[in-house]
Amino acid sequence: MKNKAVFYHAGCPVCVSAEQSVLAALDKNRFDVEVVHLGTAKGRVSEAEKLGVKSVPALALNGQVFHINFGASLSALK
Amino acid sequence: MKNKAVFYHAGCPVCVSAEQSVLAALDKNRFDVEVVHLGTAKGRVSEAEKLGVKSVPALALNGQVFHINFGASLSALK
Repeated sequence: MKNKAVFYHAGCPVCVSAEQSVLAALDKNRFDVEVVHLGTAKGRVSEAEKLGVKSVPALALNGQVFHINFGASLSALK
Repeated sequence: MKNKAVFYHAGCPVCVSAEQSVLAALDKNRFDVEVVHLGTAKGRVSEAEKLGVKSVPALALNGQVFHINFGASLSALK
């Protein structure tokens, strides 16, 4: 079974940079990658919050959250 | 030519977590990965600083710095 990577972002410049570099560098043979735009997918904000996402961009690897630099706080997306 | 990934850390728990998850998820077919412990390799601190590393753990992908969560500030390692 593949590992799961979920990239939460909000379309911000810092988010785009992280997506183009960090997310692009992941091994797609081992990870299923999902990209979630929390600015448009408002229904996913609570899911992100439960995982522990405090700000975007954030990368969840098998449910473990890693905040990558700082684009916007999650509270600004509610 | 392979891409270059440098992971700067200081052996902190947050660093170890990022190394075991984010660094481990990188595609090693496309990236040459170097791990630098700034607590022991003091001579690399200025290099990290010049790249823009403010805290560890940080991942530099082809020279672009991404801070992953927060373990310790670079100034604490000087």
